[in-house]
Parts: sequence; structure tokens; C-alpha cells
Amino acid sequence: VTGGAAEFTLELPGGRSTEIAVGPGLLAGAAPWPVAATVADRAVWELHGARLPQTWRRVVLPLAPGEGAKEWSVLGELLERLCAAGLERGDCLAAFGGGAALDVGGLAAALYLRGVAWIACPTTLLAMVDAAVGGKTAVNLPGAKNQVGAFHAPTRVLADTELLATLPEAELRSGLGEVLKTALIAGEELLARLERDAAALLRREAAALGPVILACLRTKAAVVAEDEREGGRRAILNLGHTFGHAIEAVAGPGTIPHGVAVAAGLGCALELAERTELLEERPLRARVARTAALLQLPASLDELRRTSGCLLPAPALRRALDRDKKRAGSRPRLVLPRRAGEIEFGLAVDEADLLAVLA
Amino acid sequence: VTGGAAEFTLELPGGRSTEIAVGPGLLAGAAPWPVAATVADRAVWELHGARLPQTWRRVVLPLAPGEGAKEWSVLGELLERLCAAGLERGDCLAAFGGGAALDVGGLAAALYLRGVAWIACPTTLLAMVDAAVGGKTAVNLPGAKNQVGAFHAPTRVLADTELLATLPEAELRSGLGEVLKTALIAGEELLARLERDAAALLRREAAALGPVILACLRTKAAVVAEDEREGGRRAILNLGHTFGHAIEAVAGPGTIPHGVAVAAGLGCALELAERTELLEERPLRARVARTAALLQLPASLDELRRTSGCLLPAPALRRALDRDKKRAGSRPRLVLPRRAGEIEFGLAVDEADLLAVLA
Repeated sequence: VTGGAAEFTLELPGGRSTEIAVGPGLLAGAAPWPVAATVADRAVWELHGARLPQTWRRVVLPLAPGEGAKEWSVLGELLERLCAAGLERGDCLAAFGGGAALDVGGLAAALYLRGVAWIACPTTLLAMVDAAVGGKTAVNLPGAKNQVGAFHAPTRVLADTELLATLPEAELRSGLGEVLKTALIAGEELLARLERDAAALLRREAAALGPVILACLRTKAAVVAEDEREGGRRAILNLGHTFGHAIEAVAGPGTIPHGVAVAAGLGCALELAERTELLEERPLRARVARTAALLQLPASLDELRRTSGCLLPAPALRRALDRDKKRAGSRPRLVLPRRAGEIEFGLAVDEADLLAVLA
Repeated sequence: VTGGAAEFTLELPGGRSTEIAVGPGLLAGAAPWPVAATVADRAVWELHGARLPQTWRRVVLPLAPGEGAKEWSVLGELLERLCAAGLERGDCLAAFGGGAALDVGGLAAALYLRGVAWIACPTTLLAMVDAAVGGKTAVNLPGAKNQVGAFHAPTRVLADTELLATLPEAELRSGLGEVLKTALIAGEELLARLERDAAALLRREAAALGPVILACLRTKAAVVAEDEREGGRRAILNLGHTFGHAIEAVAGPGTIPHGVAVAAGLGCALELAERTELLEERPLRARVARTAALLQLPASLDELRRTSGCLLPAPALRRALDRDKKRAGSRPRLVLPRRAGEIEFGLAVDEADLLAVLA
């Protein structure tokens, strides 16, 4: 995908599918797919709205930027506006923005008339490699992130890499945290590419970004195709997230970017895998730490404590783990690596090991 | 099901299924199925809450009676209360009440943590024969009924016929309207049973009610098993409803009970099928009219105008048809009978024929 675009299809049960495309300038060529209304992050719209086909811009429903859009009342207003705009069963919605805009736009599409089609147009690296594919949509309840939602796969994902030129530095690094997680799931090839291209990725070189985003999307799509509704194996996509979510919760919403918390969470998962002797590829922990450093990401909880200025006390993190939505009964269930490309899920670990990692 | 209970299983795609049971006193024996929280119509709860297993009554979330519960803000509060009660992925919700309580309770189950299991406990005849089975859940937007929702089949339906003893007379007849519609879809056997047992049904005799409810549930389940998400044939369940919804909309919300409007709508559908020469079983129209009379239901729009005192002007009804959610483009699509047990859907008809039926 150097210069050009690449695409592939994610096949889902029941004859559904998601067409996924990555490349520079894709949005300008999206006119062949009719869209009746576009839900857009207001801030991104001001920067890049003009890139969308003219026909997509007739009905635009702006959202508050970022996580503020993921509220029950905002979703209700959005649905009322779709109704006022006269959207019908056969119509298609577009969602344009970062993960929050895709989460709330996708959930509106899931609920409006019990489900209309939607096209995901991610505008951040994080949303391109994660939120756009897989059909998980959600809003938050007070104090409970993504507590309410639906599985509703988009019919199409358009990851236009030109949009990344204006992405704030912190958001680029946040996206790279999710990329690093995906590389651990994907295995050797993507991990080696990240090591080689880390500097080029930080410089946002198209020749580096395109293939990495495509590889992440292919990795996530392969997992989702096997287990769309997270009955089992899809849980491996949460590698680094049980710790990451606890870090985000303790630091306070919006304090530490999601992908940065996930990078530190990967460090925790690797340390725990080492302690519990699940990790068979012993050099992996140090290798991931070096790659994180190349990507200017924290490789451990301690490094995150130093660089973020957040205290992140172990007892608070431990309590936050107990509030994880994916717990089974009272014990947290963990996703840990055996080697690059080989991830285990649903693991219970000894309390002492858990506390040692958080300390 | 005279005296005893009958049950069967509705098999759905992806290995899902709904266990459906009908009979007197069923709820008292429901303890084997664990329920973490019960969403209940407040008025029905006061009358019949004590019939539920004690374990189901530990967390009770009351709803405003009837259609008032189907609001976006009510659904949001319900989800927050489920969160506060600590419901987890593996937990099961019960919904106890009429169609509105099942619609909003089922939608809460669909959305909470992207979907938890739920048990439908219908308490009205209408909800037993219609809302409880098929997985359509919904709330209303201002001026737009069921505009927002999800397909989320319950794992179990418990239709306890003892609850019908306290059902208000008007609600019993409303349920019988939906029963009459179902008989037209089911064919000769159920239609003959209705003619024979009409008086016993109005007297709420268990020996009459049980088999009729069971036959209605089997009929609906067979249609839903073929086409759960209404890609096509499930539309036949809307027989009488395109006209019925227009009647309800013009009369004003809550003025004419749903099943009564559907009964008059069946009259319209039969007249239109006759006019357009789709109807092959010519005596069917008069036969259904006689059965409606036996069930104390209106057999035509004119009869409904006389008995309800609502004007229901033809031009207003015609405009309401254009606002039907199931229209395709600008033309209403109709569901019309060819004969008892043989229903066609997605039909466009001449404007003149449509206007003649509404006049």
C-alpha cells in the first residue's frame, strides 16, 4: 500500500461482511457508496470534512469531540436527529472520527429501526487499527466505560491514511500502543516490521504507516472472523487491556491516552507471563520493551509512573482489576502471551503474582 | 394444555434458541432458571409479583405501567440500575409485564454489556401471543413508535395463563385481535377453533385459552425461525398492522387498543385483497367478519368508527400510511391474504383501491 490502496473482505456469519480498505486519499473516492447521513466528530469535521464526497455531506450530525460523545443522552439525541432527517431501513449511515465517534455512530446504526448499514471512516491511528473493525459499538454509563452497546459490524471501513498528517502527537503514540499489542498477537513478521520502521512511523511516512495499518486490520479481522461475539478466542484482542483499563481508571478518565496505558499493560502482561512461567519465548519481554522505547511508549508500569507523573498505587490498581467487566465471578481473568503470535486467554493467576506485577 | 403446561423450542441461527412454555401456574415453578434482576411493570408487579420465585425478587426494577415505559430516558435509567446492581455478563434478566415491559426489558438485556440473556414473562394476552416471541425489542422516539431497538431473542418465554384472570376486559379483547390475525396466518385449524371457542375465550376459560395461545406461539415461532430479522417473509406477521398502525396514529396514542386497531386493519386488508383480486378464498372476508363479531371486535373501519367514536378521516389515514416504517421509498407496501394460511407481503397496490378501502 505504498502510494496506492489495499483492500480485503472480512467474512462474518449469516452472509454479512465488512469491506476493508487502507490507503491515502480513499475518502475522496467513496462517492459510489450512498450515505444518507454522516455522524462526525465536530473537531475532525472542521479539519477534514471537505474530503468526504459531496453527497455524504448533505446531512451531517456533529458530535462533541472525543469521549464526551459516548453518553446515553447524546446517543438519544443522535437517534432523534436521524429520525427527523427521515432515514429509512435501506439507508446507510457514515461515522467519521476517532474511536468515540465510531462507537456512538455505530451504536446509533445498530439501534435505528433495529439496525441500518454503516460505513466506518476512522480518522485516528487508534481507530484505524482497532475501533473501526469488529463491530463492537458502545456508550458509557456514569463510571462504567462501554457498559452499554451492541455488536453491529460496519459494511465498509475506509482508513484514509492522509488524515493522520494532522493527528496530534500524543494520539499518534496512543495508536502505536495498540499497534504494538496487535504485533504481539500477529507474531514475528509485524513485530520485526515495527522494530525496523519505528522511526518512520513516528515521522508518519506513508510507506511505513500503510502496511502496518493493513497488517493490524488483517490480524484483527482474522480473530473477529473466528469469534465475532467474543464467546472465546476474541478475548485475545484484550491483551494488555485488563491492566490498561485499570491504569486508565485509576489515573482518571482522559489522563493517560488509551494506547499508552495498553503499552504499559503489555509490560505487565509480559512480566506476569514470565512470573507464572507461561512465557516460553523468554527474550520476548525485553524485545517488546525495546520496541516500545523505539515507539516512545512506556514498557512497564514503573516507566509509566515516572513519565506520566501519575502515582498509580498498586492497591488502587488491584481494586480496579476487580471491576473489570470481563471478570468471571470475583477473580480477574487475564490474557497473557506464550510467545509472539501465541496468546492465551481466560487465565486465573495467583494473587501474589498479580500483586507483584502491580507493585 | 388443559390444566397442564405445554412447551416447545424455537431454534434460531447460530445455535441460539428460545424455550417456550404455556400453562397455568408456570411462574411458581421457574426457580430452576436463575435470574439476577427482574424488570417489571409496576402495576402488574403489585397484582402478581408474589407469583415469581423468591430468588427472582431480590432485585426488582419497576417500570411505569404501559407504553410510558418505552422511553429513551427510562431505558437509560434502567441500564444504570442494572449496572448499580452489579449485573455481569453471565447473568440473566427477567422481564415481567405486557408488551411495553417486554420491549424495554428485552432491549435493556440486548444492550447491557452488549447483550445478556433474558426470560420473557408476558402478563397480557397480547404480549403472550405476540411481544414475547421473536426477539423484537424497542423503545419509542417522540412521535415515532418502536423507532429504536434490537433483535434479541429471550432464552425462555413463560406464558402463565393464570395471570389473565385479572386482565382488564379491553386488554383481553385487544389480545384477541392479535389472535384473530394469527389465525388468518395459521389457517383453517386455528380459525375454526376461534369460531367454536369465541365465547369461552371471552369468559377466559383455561381449556379454551391455553390451546389458542399455544397455537399462536407455534405459528409465530415458525415464521420467526425462517426469517428472524425480517429480511422477507416475517413481514406477514404485520398482516392488518399497516392499517392498524395508521388507525392508532390518527386516533392518537392509547385511544384505540392495539389489537382492536389490528382487527379493523384485518378488515381493511381483506377488503383490499378482494378489490385487487388477490383474495382467492372469497368467503374468507365474511367469515373473518363473523369471527371478529363473536370476539367482540370491529370487523371494519366503519364499524370501528361507529364503536370508538373516533372520526378516523380517510385523508389522515392515507397520510399516516406514508409514514409507515415499512414503506419502500414513497409507496406503502402491504401484507394481504390470498386465503387463510396463505399471506402475501411487500405488495404495492393502486392508489384508487387504497383510497376506496379507507373511505
